[in-house]
Amino acid sequence: MKTVNVGLLGLGTVGGGTATVLSRNAEEISRRIGCEIKITHAAAKEIEHASDLGLGDIKLSTDAANVIGDESIDIIVELIGGYEPARTFVLQAIENGKHVVTANKALIAKHGNEIFEAAEKKGVSVCYEAAVAGGIPIIKAMRESLAANKVNWLAGIINGTGNFILTEMRDKGRDFADVLKEAQQLGYAEADPTFDVEGIDAAHKLAILASLAFGMPLSFDKVFTEGITKITSEDVVYANELGYRIKHLGLAVRTDDGIEMRVHPTLIPEGRLIANVDGVMNAVLVECDALGPSLYYGAGAGAEPTASAVVADITDLARAIVSDTKYAIPHLSFQADAIQEQKILAIDEIETAYYIRLNADDEAGVMAEISGILAENQISIDAIVQNPPVDDSGNIPIVILTHRVKEKKMNDALEQIKALEHVEDDLLRIRVESLG
Amino acid sequence: MKTVNVGLLGLGTVGGGTATVLSRNAEEISRRIGCEIKITHAAAKEIEHASDLGLGDIKLSTDAANVIGDESIDIIVELIGGYEPARTFVLQAIENGKHVVTANKALIAKHGNEIFEAAEKKGVSVCYEAAVAGGIPIIKAMRESLAANKVNWLAGIINGTGNFILTEMRDKGRDFADVLKEAQQLGYAEADPTFDVEGIDAAHKLAILASLAFGMPLSFDKVFTEGITKITSEDVVYANELGYRIKHLGLAVRTDDGIEMRVHPTLIPEGRLIANVDGVMNAVLVECDALGPSLYYGAGAGAEPTASAVVADITDLARAIVSDTKYAIPHLSFQADAIQEQKILAIDEIETAYYIRLNADDEAGVMAEISGILAENQISIDAIVQNPPVDDSGNIPIVILTHRVKEKKMNDALEQIKALEHVEDDLLRIRVESLG
Repeated sequence: MKTVNVGLLGLGTVGGGTATVLSRNAEEISRRIGCEIKITHAAAKEIEHASDLGLGDIKLSTDAANVIGDESIDIIVELIGGYEPARTFVLQAIENGKHVVTANKALIAKHGNEIFEAAEKKGVSVCYEAAVAGGIPIIKAMRESLAANKVNWLAGIINGTGNFILTEMRDKGRDFADVLKEAQQLGYAEADPTFDVEGIDAAHKLAILASLAFGMPLSFDKVFTEGITKITSEDVVYANELGYRIKHLGLAVRTDDGIEMRVHPTLIPEGRLIANVDGVMNAVLVECDALGPSLYYGAGAGAEPTASAVVADITDLARAIVSDTKYAIPHLSFQADAIQEQKILAIDEIETAYYIRLNADDEAGVMAEISGILAENQISIDAIVQNPPVDDSGNIPIVILTHRVKEKKMNDALEQIKALEHVEDDLLRIRVESLG
Repeated sequence: MKTVNVGLLGLGTVGGGTATVLSRNAEEISRRIGCEIKITHAAAKEIEHASDLGLGDIKLSTDAANVIGDESIDIIVELIGGYEPARTFVLQAIENGKHVVTANKALIAKHGNEIFEAAEKKGVSVCYEAAVAGGIPIIKAMRESLAANKVNWLAGIINGTGNFILTEMRDKGRDFADVLKEAQQLGYAEADPTFDVEGIDAAHKLAILASLAFGMPLSFDKVFTEGITKITSEDVVYANELGYRIKHLGLAVRTDDGIEMRVHPTLIPEGRLIANVDGVMNAVLVECDALGPSLYYGAGAGAEPTASAVVADITDLARAIVSDTKYAIPHLSFQADAIQEQKILAIDEIETAYYIRLNADDEAGVMAEISGILAENQISIDAIVQNPPVDDSGNIPIVILTHRVKEKKMNDALEQIKALEHVEDDLLRIRVESLG
């Protein structure tokens, strides 16, 4: 099997996550892309703790130039962050004919035009899926999946820290400063939270999304940016009363007069899906002429979610590097020769929770009989609703929610319940999934 | 500019939508992909009304073989639907060395293994983004964006008709049969609604998603399928009381014992984002080991939403066909030479609605002064909340929601309001967006 060699710049949170994901899922990734991906060389300011990352026996350096200059490397992954020296390193990697993967929104938003021009001259790709909304594949959606469309506008919750703060303020009536302190303790917010709470981080991401939407050069310095520091818990309460949620939103809008790019706190009607994106989660809503609205939701930060996007970029490049054709994506995602039959469970082997609705005669002891049968079958009850009779039939509707159990056991129990003298035959069972 | 020639099989709803989108957005699509896409030949049973589709001066035929055999055609787009003759046509197109794009979930779910094997032998691609969840780019997400991950489970609302019926039952307390009849009148449901309400359509889509998730052959015949016909409006009410929504869900789950594939009505906790996907909209929630949960939401059916996915597949193929390299996606989605400077509006030129919170002295006439200023600036009021004083300052908090207005006018008004004798300086303005 062919190998694609990766050089890593930066061994922080995302660098560590990338190493972990590539190593843990190595076999499944190879089945998908038909080659092996190996981190063979990494550089960081401090490499003492690199052995904790499970990188195995690779070259380590404190000088990025060693990795960028390593001729055996196909892809340089830049996970240092910030404008410099990331910019210099990326331009040097391009100059050396390497593909680049980066999670660096600041770099792309500010120096993307220069970097992409250099890459196009050299015939290499600079991939940056992880730069916007962490693990959400919004770059690919905008670049490829929505290519048929004219984008009218997009709106994104693209800073997890800000969204965490606003969510806590709403759910618990807490003050901004109080929640910010907690976010810092939890590691969601930096010691200097300016980039997050003043909207600069979101503005970086919005600039990228706007260029993808409207076919214009990256224009970070033209994004209007307003932070969330002046929002009080009273505003959150008033917004709720009026039927709105307050979100720190990035908006890019195509109008007849020009393009709007703005990041600011925004009241959104509570019924909108994006108004219900809470905590550190991100989401981007894109309104297009053909598709209409579509929304992409997921984790906007964190080691492994960000690594998911970094590795997606690496697999895209690796598939192209090793493929003989320009059509490198296998039809069913996995290489044809790696598709394997799996045991498919019969329905009575699945496990789930259940909602059961039945009608019973209004007689003493019915409920005891039913719950006795459930207990005999080791089915535990989560909730019961027993209402008064709805008509003159004397029947009472009973609704039972159970905890999770094998369907076979539930079937046995339901047969026994249906056989009870005082239970009608028209019992209904609906499966319950927490999706949590 | 190079041209990629497309042959269309089927001129129904999606065929018409595809023609419309390709024609309306021709210029923007060319800026993105660096070539022209032309439908040059189409076949349908009835071609009398083809001129209404704005296809221009193209070849029309009642015999699909003419299109499939047309040597000038690069991509065959199959939009006939159903198992046969779609299967025969697609296999013939592959045999003729054409790439294929299809929106046909039944075909892929049932005959995909055979079709993909034939395509791989011939070195062509069969693309089917539109086959699952209409315009939502879930196939690309599963095949490319999530390639770093092990998929634990996925859950999808992947039949718009069923979701419309369940949503109406909940929102309006209506019965299943009653809503089904309306869905048929609105054109959401077929005259024979079996495929939709019995879950067969969803099972087709689930089989595809499960194969993409778990690297196994398409196994449509092993999907457990249960319809929504037995759900009553009482069940919807009980579910609500218990904090749940009922959705017709497709679930694919990886367990230690094997794979679960099942389509059935499901109670979901009301707080979950996917529980709030209503009406004809679709969504797929995917739980992965690295990324965690991610959700993809959009229109699952309809002429242009489905065409959005069909054309995305066409643009993917066209980019690869005309590109000299294997790295065909331009960095900013648009070809470098097609990126154009746009006028970016200054913040005072944008238009939005506003939330204004201010503190005023508890004096008669203050509200009249404020609303007078808004009126003078042609700002109309949507809602006002005026609460009693919150402390002994004598100040009363006033919250005003306005309709949309140019920010410049709002700034002028706010300056005048702040200058009022009885209004405090600490006025807060938050922008309001309906995102509707």
